[in-house]
Amino acid sequence: MSIEIRPIGEVAKEESRVCIWIYDSFWDATLNLDKFSHLIILWWISGRDNPESRQTLRVVPKGDEETVEESGVFACRSPARPNPIGHTVVALRDIDEAAKRLVIDQIDAFHGTPVLDIKPYMPTSDRVDGAEVPIWFRSLLPRYTNSY
Amino acid sequence: MSIEIRPIGEVAKEESRVCIWIYDSFWDATLNLDKFSHLIILWWISGRDNPESRQTLRVVPKGDEETVEESGVFACRSPARPNPIGHTVVALRDIDEAAKRLVIDQIDAFHGTPVLDIKPYMPTSDRVDGAEVPIWFRSLLPRYTNSY
Repeated sequence: MSIEIRPIGEVAKEESRVCIWIYDSFWDATLNLDKFSHLIILWWISGRDNPESRQTLRVVPKGDEETVEESGVFACRSPARPNPIGHTVVALRDIDEAAKRLVIDQIDAFHGTPVLDIKPYMPTSDRVDGAEVPIWFRSLLPRYTNSY
Repeated sequence: MSIEIRPIGEVAKEESRVCIWIYDSFWDATLNLDKFSHLIILWWISGRDNPESRQTLRVVPKGDEETVEESGVFACRSPARPNPIGHTVVALRDIDEAAKRLVIDQIDAFHGTPVLDIKPYMPTSDRVDGAEVPIWFRSLLPRYTNSY
């Protein structure tokens, strides 16, 4: 079974802002997006869309160097994975209707990266209290939370 | 630009448990997954992989009936969307090595649904304090959080 997906926009890193540029034909899908503070961006890790990266099943993830253990790519956020779909939670700063851009705070994707989907961040289903992670990820700096 | 993805497993709703069945060739990618309590499952909403659903840009989302407003599909979690990629945060209950299944608490996907990717839930990047949502979503019951 093979599935076909098409970009709905792309990452636009501009001089003074970071944006998701939504293609004209998909702009109608942004109605009421301004009522959310945070979004989930699904993007295509195009630099890793090659047979070698897509066959990578284990890596040494980025984390505390003294404790980190080789892990499966499903147990870390490695860009090398069978389906290189990037997942980033971002803060929505502004919506530029004229330029068809969602202005966000940051994204760990290059300018021009294909964007596949945008979902609103729903605390009722996306926020987890007390989630456990292995010791090698416990020193990472939290982005949008103070305690977990 | 067209992107090709392939399932790495599928949802297996069994008699007494809910599972993600990982295909043999991808099982190595689960190493160290047992060190996480929660996962992000990306799945293919196969029932909505048709031209009509994929051209749907606006819907009336499920939420408080008195306040809900028509919204873009990027501003709700509608299964009808240009790239019908499902996103569900789940709790990992157990790992059944012999049957190559991740036993989870729940998922809003049917038995046999293709699974595209599994990512560990990382509070440092996935947990958001004080995220805003429109009034029509404020009555939804939270799944893994007590306050937001």
